[in-house]
Amino acid sequence: MILAEELTKILSSDQVTQNLTILQQHSQDESFHEPHLPDVVVFPKSSNDVSRILSFANEHRIPVVPFGAGSGLEGHAIPVQGGITLDFALMNRILEIYPSDFCVKVQPGVTRLQLNKELKKYGLFFSVDPGADATLGGMAATNASGTTAVRYGIMRDQVRDLEVVLADGRTIHTGGQAVKSSSGYHLNGLFTGSEGTLGVFTELTLKVYGIPECVMAARAAFPTVKQALNTATSILTAGIPIAKMELVDSRSILQMNRFQETDYPVMPTLFLEFHGNDNGLEQETAFTRLIAEEQACVDFIYESDSKERKKLWKARHHLSYAFRHGSPGKHIEGTDVCVPLSCLADSIEHARKKMEEADIDGAVIGHIGDGNYHTLLVIDPDDPNDRKKAHEINKAIVEFALQHGGTCTGEHGVGLGKIRYQRTEHGNALDVMMDLKRLLDPNHILNPGKLFPMSSPSTLNIN
Amino acid sequence: MILAEELTKILSSDQVTQNLTILQQHSQDESFHEPHLPDVVVFPKSSNDVSRILSFANEHRIPVVPFGAGSGLEGHAIPVQGGITLDFALMNRILEIYPSDFCVKVQPGVTRLQLNKELKKYGLFFSVDPGADATLGGMAATNASGTTAVRYGIMRDQVRDLEVVLADGRTIHTGGQAVKSSSGYHLNGLFTGSEGTLGVFTELTLKVYGIPECVMAARAAFPTVKQALNTATSILTAGIPIAKMELVDSRSILQMNRFQETDYPVMPTLFLEFHGNDNGLEQETAFTRLIAEEQACVDFIYESDSKERKKLWKARHHLSYAFRHGSPGKHIEGTDVCVPLSCLADSIEHARKKMEEADIDGAVIGHIGDGNYHTLLVIDPDDPNDRKKAHEINKAIVEFALQHGGTCTGEHGVGLGKIRYQRTEHGNALDVMMDLKRLLDPNHILNPGKLFPMSSPSTLNIN
Repeated sequence: MILAEELTKILSSDQVTQNLTILQQHSQDESFHEPHLPDVVVFPKSSNDVSRILSFANEHRIPVVPFGAGSGLEGHAIPVQGGITLDFALMNRILEIYPSDFCVKVQPGVTRLQLNKELKKYGLFFSVDPGADATLGGMAATNASGTTAVRYGIMRDQVRDLEVVLADGRTIHTGGQAVKSSSGYHLNGLFTGSEGTLGVFTELTLKVYGIPECVMAARAAFPTVKQALNTATSILTAGIPIAKMELVDSRSILQMNRFQETDYPVMPTLFLEFHGNDNGLEQETAFTRLIAEEQACVDFIYESDSKERKKLWKARHHLSYAFRHGSPGKHIEGTDVCVPLSCLADSIEHARKKMEEADIDGAVIGHIGDGNYHTLLVIDPDDPNDRKKAHEINKAIVEFALQHGGTCTGEHGVGLGKIRYQRTEHGNALDVMMDLKRLLDPNHILNPGKLFPMSSPSTLNIN
Repeated sequence: MILAEELTKILSSDQVTQNLTILQQHSQDESFHEPHLPDVVVFPKSSNDVSRILSFANEHRIPVVPFGAGSGLEGHAIPVQGGITLDFALMNRILEIYPSDFCVKVQPGVTRLQLNKELKKYGLFFSVDPGADATLGGMAATNASGTTAVRYGIMRDQVRDLEVVLADGRTIHTGGQAVKSSSGYHLNGLFTGSEGTLGVFTELTLKVYGIPECVMAARAAFPTVKQALNTATSILTAGIPIAKMELVDSRSILQMNRFQETDYPVMPTLFLEFHGNDNGLEQETAFTRLIAEEQACVDFIYESDSKERKKLWKARHHLSYAFRHGSPGKHIEGTDVCVPLSCLADSIEHARKKMEEADIDGAVIGHIGDGNYHTLLVIDPDDPNDRKKAHEINKAIVEFALQHGGTCTGEHGVGLGKIRYQRTEHGNALDVMMDLKRLLDPNHILNPGKLFPMSSPSTLNIN
């Protein structure tokens, strides 16, 4: 069977390509995982297109991998078994904005910045910010989160409904337009974060929020990571509805200063953001400052000016670039675990120690209101020894997290990189997950090779 | 087989009873649904007890129904096919409070008031308040919510981990202690709200919050329901993090005044609660007042005093009693739908019209930040005509909700009463739900007769 030819019987020929450059673009994501070419890339224009492709693929046991912006960090979009990559570039319309229902209906190829630009006209915003300008379909597939999760929740919290095409081509809706429901099983939650392994999203209804009246940022430097984290816990205990609360360790601040021309004190630092009204924020920030000072905070600076605030968050978001630019030719490998807040300080200390022992430079940063932290490891991608060291550090960090009640991935997802930790993390719940996979994708065509240590499907001979 | 005798081989004899009074107590909940006796009531003391009972029941195809406080409103705990009722009265311990992790580990028989009493010592609280002093196991099973969901979310949002005994006696954990995770399928969400049909909860890890510095309540009366609801939408658009936002219609206010000796203006009224710091609340309430006045609010009263605040919420929570006491011998039947906010005013108007057409008195009240509203219908339980009218009103309300993108149940769950609407609401997603049920409970022993229009299992002859 000539796969591309068969597909042009289903879609129009300009929706199907085997152009090598395009295949290569769809062979990788932003991670360190080995690229692999798909056999063909198709560009569906509708749910119906997706449904017909899946019916065909299911019948012929051909792997199908959905592709958004390619900004994933665990290899989700890499078609490790070849087959069909579904690129949602042509399904990138904002279908409807419902201002008084605080929700929007979008196609999966819409990116979060595209959505926020449009929402702004209505005084609304979409809260999840994973850093990259990811597609909303991809963010739902990996259950993305980021800096604002401490206040507004993760991607799964925003999903009211998904239109999902199942492996056999059936189309279902997992939820509805109501804010909440106790009707039936929570398919919204099951499909969000399923990483393309249970179905393909063709439409998303997502929660949005009113833009807060006032936004204020602050930066607070502490002698130790522990004191910064104690401050974070006290902020939460006080019920202060903090909107962002990021830890940047002192090594990272040093690199930030070099790259961004900032002159922040080279100490463990909290980057904070408050959303509310101006009176409330005044009191919240004053109270936060008091809490911080009890933890020996040596430098507490407000950035109420929007330009200064942008500079602060830019510095935070460009940390990976800062390290890369500081070490030409080097790459950054990230780690991503989430631990109970009470052991976050120990986890971070442990991670930094592992980096030092291996003589690997890099950052330690965290969405610490959630207990989610990352290391950014600076390595030479062509040095097998460096790659091995990065792998070992990642392993040590994950194992420490799992030993302390945490999870192997806070927000990047399982993809290829965290499969090996699934049994330890989930115990025999993994059997239930694998049963769900077999139930909904019996021929194992949906993003095979991801999430589970399951065998590959028996694919036909395709080219 | 003598069921009770067999069970005393598994548990100690004081954990197994066929005492008629106890069987009767477990034959019903707070709803209008027909009682049905279980064959036997058992009181497990541990996960292990539950596991052994389920293994036995699964082998012998005996229905198993978990029972918490019996405060459900859709017949969930009624053992419509007899069998074993599992009462969690002996599994009512708060196992651990993790103040710096903002979570608690409890057994399923712990009630929410019991938990909040203990949490107060740590400056923490558990947010979900469905009115009744339900057990946390029951609240997780039905995905309960209530007045605070607009700010803190519903029950499903609070669940970090469930220990679940599956139909075959296997025990799994659906999550972990981390605040968030992108690892594996969201079993937390799948099991929460599964109404005892997929597994039995034996331990819950739940999110808790820091008690806010300041709490302030307010009451605002409007000429029309529409104006009250416009105010609610504007409050949300403005990004005011309102903690409670309840609509009470004018007929309900009248009854409230008669029963509670309040003298609230007999008009559609918003009951509001704000959580924050005092400066912030001052500005939030002032801004809310401005928004309300734009909608012709005629009476805006603050209740910052905790005694007055309690009186206000007591009046709201005792509305059902107020109607019952006003009509001796009558019963209250509730309805429970959730609709997109944009059609809430029309839905409420439609509901009140249906009540008037049927000449049925009662309340219309709503958790309107979520679009969730209830009617409380005052009927004579011995009058078949009244029961029929209540049934018709409920049906009309649900159908209106489903026609407008809403759900047949906002917070009470499906149980027995909403089975008939599942196909209309979920379309072919219901097939996926039924497949999940078959996968996890192939012998159909777990709370059979609930949630789905599925056939009963072939039960053995039990007595």
